[in-house]
Amino acid sequence: MPALHLNGPKLLEQIHTLGQIGADPANGGRTRIALTDAEKAGRDQLVAWMHELELQVQVDRIGNIFGTLRVPGDAAPLMMGSHIDSVTNAGALDGCYGVLAGLAVQRAYREAGVLPARSICVAAFTNEEGVRYQPDMMGSLVHAGGLDVQQALDTLGTDGTRLGDELRRIGYAGELEPGAIVPHEYLELHIEQGPILEAESLQIGVVENLQGISWQQVTVKGNANHAGTTPTRLRHDAGYVASTVVSELRRFAKTSGTTLATVGCMHFEPNVINVIPRRASFTVDLRDPSEHKLQQAEAHLAQLLRQLAEEEGVSVDTEQLVRFEPVQFDAALADQIQACADRRGLSYRRMTSGAGHDAQMIARIAPAAMIFVPSRGGISHNPREHTDDGQLLEGAQVLLEVVARRLDKHR
Amino acid sequence: MPALHLNGPKLLEQIHTLGQIGADPANGGRTRIALTDAEKAGRDQLVAWMHELELQVQVDRIGNIFGTLRVPGDAAPLMMGSHIDSVTNAGALDGCYGVLAGLAVQRAYREAGVLPARSICVAAFTNEEGVRYQPDMMGSLVHAGGLDVQQALDTLGTDGTRLGDELRRIGYAGELEPGAIVPHEYLELHIEQGPILEAESLQIGVVENLQGISWQQVTVKGNANHAGTTPTRLRHDAGYVASTVVSELRRFAKTSGTTLATVGCMHFEPNVINVIPRRASFTVDLRDPSEHKLQQAEAHLAQLLRQLAEEEGVSVDTEQLVRFEPVQFDAALADQIQACADRRGLSYRRMTSGAGHDAQMIARIAPAAMIFVPSRGGISHNPREHTDDGQLLEGAQVLLEVVARRLDKHR
Repeated sequence: MPALHLNGPKLLEQIHTLGQIGADPANGGRTRIALTDAEKAGRDQLVAWMHELELQVQVDRIGNIFGTLRVPGDAAPLMMGSHIDSVTNAGALDGCYGVLAGLAVQRAYREAGVLPARSICVAAFTNEEGVRYQPDMMGSLVHAGGLDVQQALDTLGTDGTRLGDELRRIGYAGELEPGAIVPHEYLELHIEQGPILEAESLQIGVVENLQGISWQQVTVKGNANHAGTTPTRLRHDAGYVASTVVSELRRFAKTSGTTLATVGCMHFEPNVINVIPRRASFTVDLRDPSEHKLQQAEAHLAQLLRQLAEEEGVSVDTEQLVRFEPVQFDAALADQIQACADRRGLSYRRMTSGAGHDAQMIARIAPAAMIFVPSRGGISHNPREHTDDGQLLEGAQVLLEVVARRLDKHR
Repeated sequence: MPALHLNGPKLLEQIHTLGQIGADPANGGRTRIALTDAEKAGRDQLVAWMHELELQVQVDRIGNIFGTLRVPGDAAPLMMGSHIDSVTNAGALDGCYGVLAGLAVQRAYREAGVLPARSICVAAFTNEEGVRYQPDMMGSLVHAGGLDVQQALDTLGTDGTRLGDELRRIGYAGELEPGAIVPHEYLELHIEQGPILEAESLQIGVVENLQGISWQQVTVKGNANHAGTTPTRLRHDAGYVASTVVSELRRFAKTSGTTLATVGCMHFEPNVINVIPRRASFTVDLRDPSEHKLQQAEAHLAQLLRQLAEEEGVSVDTEQLVRFEPVQFDAALADQIQACADRRGLSYRRMTSGAGHDAQMIARIAPAAMIFVPSRGGISHNPREHTDDGQLLEGAQVLLEVVARRLDKHR
């Protein structure tokens, strides 16, 4: 194994500098929504840094940026990556941390004057957040062949713009065919965006899988009647049915152990204090690392809705908004991450990613795994998103060591 | 007992004519909100009909209109009444039916050439609905001494107007001191505005009491966190707590038998599909004919909120919006109503009024009771409010017979 040194101050400085682009002093955080002027500025900065490292910079037709530390031979590269687009008033770490830590790994090779056994590629995937253009994780999905590039380019945004036009406008409509760079392996370092590592005082999350997600929109239709004159037995209360689903899903999630169930949106109509709700619409977010258990949760919800609709005399409609099967990451890669954390004396746990990440798309075409570092208070997508500098550097050290071991082994 | 004949066609014609005033062809129904131009037109029509019957018309300082069939002697009058103001896009019956049926009773005496044993007064109370000026049932409340007239006149409306100014503008700021006319007894005929009579195929409701009402606004504050990354045990889900209250209140209402519990308004924040709600605000409408049981329901809600707040690690605030104790109507009057329904071969039941009515205010100063007729589908405050003409006439017949018996007895 070569002696490789992580330039921690440089990594932190780049995270800070990139985090200033799109800063919103009024509302906090930064807003670099995909293919806006602010995100173009972020891309320009990233590309400038890639050129500083004398990487080969390539941009594909969907705007994914690849910076490759090229070594002789035509072996597939080891790829690290994530994204640099953000939500509105975001933290500085979500996505950017993984991309810039990738550069830090490349920098370590460069500064040590060591050539890795394979090319090392750092990818910044287009539109991971999906704020302006749906679906999210779009760039990595196109890269993995899950979405036709032309269809992606024709996507209309919430502001009516066409994605392809905006990509051209900001100068990132590249010529590389998506998926041309098939990685040998893929690693993504990311903040947890959840509270588990912090709650358990752990330093590293060894991410071995990613939950399946089922999003449904449920609409309950009952009858609006007077709150004072309608006996309980004659009610067709849409709000009661919706609320009971929320309460029952919690009970189901507690019993299940692994299933997460969240009702984030709720809307009553007519929403008047003394009128029984005639309509209640709400969303259900179900997640589980096991496809079988996710299906069980969906079946439970369906059964619950049927039963409540019959008991209360209301009608229920459901619409599937999103459905992703769980993703299993590469066990050997996860083992390597765990071994590196262990060797560095860091506390860790194997865990499931609750959020979606580019890694889940790349896992379709290459062995992939993720490394998590703690998020304070589990907070992300928020100006208060925070991970201590020391924790960020520990995560990057683990990434560097995993890369070194993978490339050493393959030498 | 004198032979008194109800002029049914005239009553129905007047209901129809008054119902045309303020009609909204675009959205259906009619809108005669208190002290608007449309309501002034309704008042002018009512007063014109009172003059046709040669009643003594008096208007008090809060705008209550009294039309009295005066007989010699200074005995307190028997009073019938209700209101002619409406909600937005209302039915034609709520309130108007009781006022116009009162005129029909006076007309029956007039047409029969019979002098009753006491004066008969018909009252149309100001601002029963409380759409523009709070509180509702204002005119009868002032009449009963429960609200100072000057304070009522100084009320500011939702449109910023001062009630007293609007009353003067439409020409109904009278000189009579509120409460000057203390009734000997008070009867109010009204549509049920609920589904009970229809559901039980009954023709007459003998209203013996009126539920107490407790309205509360509840705000739950938890933490917003990512739906995919926050384990169930680490959640502080304001939406879950709010929903569980809705579900539990239904269980409580079912067990109680008499308590009604309704959550009409519900609001989640930030109301995003994959974010655990940090805030949920909702209203609770509790009603019971027994003050003791109403207090039990309030105590149960408070206990439920305390327990859920502790279990989920959220904070809960409650604000009392409205609190009325139950009203017990006069048992002798109710017995008389029942006896008259029975004699006429009508099906009936003793029942509780779920909605608030002017009668509950007048009950503070005189023996009072109410007569209900069925509302189709329990619907009111809606253009679809409907009672069959035959049912309306049966109710008016019962009112006429009750008045005749009360005045016969007291002759």
